[in-house]
This record gives sequence, C-alpha cells and structure tokens, in this order.
Amino acid sequence: MIIDCHGHYTTAPKALLAWREAQIAALANPPSRREKGTIAISDDEIRASLEGAQLKFQRERGTDVTIFSPRAAGMGHHIGDATASLHWSQHCNDLIHRVCTLYPENFVGVCQLPQSPGVPPDTCIGELERCVNELGFIGCNLNPDPSGGHWTAPPLTDRYWYPLYEKMVELDVPAMVHVSSSCNPNFHHTGAHYLNADTTAFMQFVTADLFKDFPALRFVIPHGGGAVPYHWGRYRGLAQDLKRPPLGDLIRDNVFFDTCVYHLAGIELLLRIIPADNILFGSEMVGAIRSIDPETGHYFDDTKRYLDQVRGLTAADQHKIFEGNARKVYPRINQRLAAAV
Amino acid sequence: MIIDCHGHYTTAPKALLAWREAQIAALANPPSRREKGTIAISDDEIRASLEGAQLKFQRERGTDVTIFSPRAAGMGHHIGDATASLHWSQHCNDLIHRVCTLYPENFVGVCQLPQSPGVPPDTCIGELERCVNELGFIGCNLNPDPSGGHWTAPPLTDRYWYPLYEKMVELDVPAMVHVSSSCNPNFHHTGAHYLNADTTAFMQFVTADLFKDFPALRFVIPHGGGAVPYHWGRYRGLAQDLKRPPLGDLIRDNVFFDTCVYHLAGIELLLRIIPADNILFGSEMVGAIRSIDPETGHYFDDTKRYLDQVRGLTAADQHKIFEGNARKVYPRINQRLAAAV
Repeated sequence: MIIDCHGHYTTAPKALLAWREAQIAALANPPSRREKGTIAISDDEIRASLEGAQLKFQRERGTDVTIFSPRAAGMGHHIGDATASLHWSQHCNDLIHRVCTLYPENFVGVCQLPQSPGVPPDTCIGELERCVNELGFIGCNLNPDPSGGHWTAPPLTDRYWYPLYEKMVELDVPAMVHVSSSCNPNFHHTGAHYLNADTTAFMQFVTADLFKDFPALRFVIPHGGGAVPYHWGRYRGLAQDLKRPPLGDLIRDNVFFDTCVYHLAGIELLLRIIPADNILFGSEMVGAIRSIDPETGHYFDDTKRYLDQVRGLTAADQHKIFEGNARKVYPRINQRLAAAV
Repeated sequence: MIIDCHGHYTTAPKALLAWREAQIAALANPPSRREKGTIAISDDEIRASLEGAQLKFQRERGTDVTIFSPRAAGMGHHIGDATASLHWSQHCNDLIHRVCTLYPENFVGVCQLPQSPGVPPDTCIGELERCVNELGFIGCNLNPDPSGGHWTAPPLTDRYWYPLYEKMVELDVPAMVHVSSSCNPNFHHTGAHYLNADTTAFMQFVTADLFKDFPALRFVIPHGGGAVPYHWGRYRGLAQDLKRPPLGDLIRDNVFFDTCVYHLAGIELLLRIIPADNILFGSEMVGAIRSIDPETGHYFDDTKRYLDQVRGLTAADQHKIFEGNARKVYPRINQRLAAAV
C-alpha cells in the first residue's frame, strides 16, 4: 500500500470559496450574532472535484490513499478573528469529512485548526477533538505563524502551545507544521513562506527540550524539511556548538519529513541524509506546482517517480517510506483503513 | 588562486564590541550632539585577532584571499536609528579597511551598509561610496530585513531599493544578500533567519523584473542559496506556472550562490544543480559553525575539502568556482589583487 501523507483539497467546489469570500466581506460589518451557516455542495460536486484531479492522479501514479486536509493557503488564519477562523475551519473540515466518507479507501482526514493571531491555541482543542473523535480524522495541520508572514506567535517550543500538545498526545495524533498564505509581501507563499516555516520549526526543535516534555509528540515537517536536509552539516554543527543532542536523537521518535521535493537530485539528497525511519511519502498533490516538468515529461509533483528512481533503496526502507512510517506517525490511520476494506 | 567570497570579521578585538555596547547603552538617553567617536585598537591587536583564526585557516586550507566584511550578526540594523547605524557601520568598515591594509594579499573589503528599519536605503549610498572610492572595497552586504526578523521592509525587487541599486551599478559592485541577528524569537539567526532570507530573496527575484531594470546588477545569495538548490524542481515549476523566465535565464548574469554548505552531500547537490558559472567558493569562516565534524575529523566550514572531493568537477569549472567567478562578480577585486602583489 502507498500512503501519501500530504494532500490538500485544493480543488474544492466553488461554493466553499464563495462562502469564505462572503464571510470575509461581512467582517467589515459583523452582525451581532455570528453563525457558521451552511454551504450547499452536493455529493456529485464533491465527486466531480476529485475524479479529474486527486483520484485520477492516485490511479495514474499508483498510490492508494491520501492523508487529506483543507487547502493550506486557504486556511488564512490571519483573516478575521477566532470566531471567523472557527466557522471557516469547521466548514473546511466538514467537507474533508464528506470526501473521506464518499471515498473511505482513498482519503483519510487531517484537520485545519481554527487558529487566530494572538489567540492561545487552547481554543483549537475543541475542533481537534471534534475532528478526531466525531469525524475520524487522524491528525492536524499546525500553523506556526497564524499572522501570515509576520511571525508574531511564540516559537513552537514555547509553553504557549503546550495545552494543544497535551491534547495531541492524548488523542495520539501528530501535526504537520504548515503555514498558510502570506500577507507579508516579502514572502511568496509556496516559494518562500512554506519552506521558511519548515526550516524555522526545525531549528526551534533543535534548540529546545520540547520532546523531553512530550516524548510522544510527533511533527511532520513538509516540503522535504525546507532547507534542513541540504544544510544537514550546518545543523549537525549548530547542535554540537550549542551543546544540543545529536540530530539523530532529536528526530528519532518526534520529527519526520515528507518527500515533497520536486526533482530527483533533491529526493536523492533527502534519502541520503535523513534516516528512512523519518521519511514519509508525500506529494502535496494537487498543490504548489501543477504543471509538467519539460525536462522529464512528468508532473513535477509526481514524487513517487523520483523515489522509484533512487538507486539502492532497500525494499524494507521503501516500505517504511511508502506505508510503514505513515502508520507509525498517524496510528489512527490503521483503524480507518481496516474499516474501509 | 583561491578566493573565498564570504568571510566575516567575527574575531575583531574586544574594543569594537565595547564601543557598540556603550553606543547601545547611550541610546536610552542620547546626547544632543551624537558623534561617531573613536575606537582605540592597535595594529598588533588586529594582527593577533587574525593570525590564530582567519589567516591560520587560510594557510591550513590552502586558500589565498578572503572577501572580508564585518560580522553579519553584529550589523544589528534593528538597533537604534539611522545615525546609530551609520556610526557603527563606519567603525566596522574602518576596521575592515585596516585589516585589508595590513594584509592586502589576504583580505579585500566588503562593507556593511548603515541600514535602519523604515529608513529608505538611499541613506546608505554615502557610506557605500566612501567604502568603494576611498577605502577600496569591492562590494556590500545588503540586508533585506533591517528589522531583524519582522520583515517590515519592501521586497528587494521594490523600487524602494532602486536608488541604491543605481549606485551599485555605477560603482560596478555586487551585494551579498545577508541578514543580521534576529530579534524575533522564532528565528535562530544562523539556523533559520539566514537561510530563510536566502530563500526569500531568490523567490523575490523569480517573481519580478528587477534584472530587466538593472541588467548589470549582481547579487550573491550566501549559504548555498538557502533552500533553493534542494528545491530547484519546485522553483523551476513555480517559474513555469507563474509564466516567469526559466531559472537559468534569471540567474545567468545576476544571481550567484556561494558554497557555504557544510557537508559533502549538500555541496554535491549544489554543483549538480547550479551552473558552475553561478557558484562562488565561500566558507563563512570564521562564522556560523566553529567546531570539527566528528564524522570527518575536519572543520564543518572547511568547504574547500568538500569541493575537492566532488567527482567529475572539471578543471575549468573548478577555476570558475575558486577564482574566475569572484573576479567576474566582484570585478574591483582585480585591481586590488594586482596592487597587492
């Protein structure tokens, strides 16, 4: 079985975005009583949104199931307040739940959290519990910068985040560290902000004792870990100079990298540097890059092809990357997949 | 000849830092008339600060000359105002000039600019001219985020920066894109902020027509280009999806990467991905990582060793990376080196 740990519902029916646009327009003059409201999307519309995109690519590329979450750029935690973020997150998560209910063999849910700048993440616990306990989700996406490029929240290693981490550990769900769109003109979202957040989070983990406090807490750093594997020597040296534990010890049970790196040379570096136990297959499909690489004639984000081309990858390691590690990091996937058969 | 394009005076005599600390302390109650003042450092102190460090490493590693600038983390553009930044920058640059005068065969100067948050970079032109025309410097370090981690300045492609670029082109000097320390607790300076800035600047260049406006403008992106070579497929795809020119065209005459990547696998990726015409040897010595890699028994930042180990690097490409490209990107180095013999 091949599990893609990183897929977003970037092709959701237009009614979702229309609801969001109306919500944002209403923020200027909010009504005294704010309600979540409803969004009319039919099952057929959901099917149509997936059949020509994610499902088609699963079939073509030979992958089986995608750990699926709302569009990352769409989370927009910096827009509006915590109530707006909650209503929007609930709609996005509800729609993911419908996808997973329609296609239980193809999609397993990961939730968007209703984060909001300056609001402690404790407020996200209710939605996390709802998604895991009621909707059968297996993890969450955690935004280390709900301000959208101004980086005003404390580092992920600050006790500010601990109540959420306690709940994650209790529910046995991991978080993918994933920022959203950027309202800072310095940062292109998919070309800078995403990768910077990955790099930033990793260095936060290097410099703090978060995993001593939470030995069972697990994070997936997407986009192949940002700049980290390429600069692994720098990080090994920094850890050493700062009297921190060796990186292998740091990441072993707690920090994982996906394979969203869109060329063979990058994937080869990732597999050469990061232990196979800490790599999860991911493609970010349909996502950041939607076109075909003229150098290969294949989609940039068909990351399975790169993995298939890596020489010397043992069958055991291949199994870990494609399936075993996802089952380990997102253990709730096991009951979902068993129920889907 | 081997030219190291990236060295900082991290070992400057203590009197420099003492002056800076006194300056910062005085910011709370600034005198009505603010003066640059003087710093008493003897030639012998300068010699002592280099003989056991940069000069020793040059000899041991077999490199010849370092393009040398003030300590990057020390620039601290976010501290105080433009006057404070000017006085501090002048002292730092004056000291680099003394180093280059004492050791004209070993060091060629690159200046710190007196940037300050919210202050247009036009105010840096005077110091750039002084350093190039009077002190014989051959380039500058340009900080895309003078706020120190809050990223409040416009992108490097904004017309905000154009007056400075006009002067750089007129003087025929490049800039290394280099942030300073971070006052944002999210960003460790050498472990996140530096690499993020490299990644961010590159994506800004991808999305704008800066080099159409300034065909002769040249930037060196340090630290091996941040996350960029590792994610080269992502950037090729983004450029294609955004209808931007191919990356090879973008960087050809304008964007260069140094080799400050502290492990062989990273250097091999860099050389596999980036054309040899766009790579400059650099070590960041003495800098971010000061210790010996227990896996190799050699200093992490001895980047020449990695380059020497890369298989299949032609003599022609080796010459470009070690010498030719530095002479091309920093053309004023030619007269400095000729005068030094």
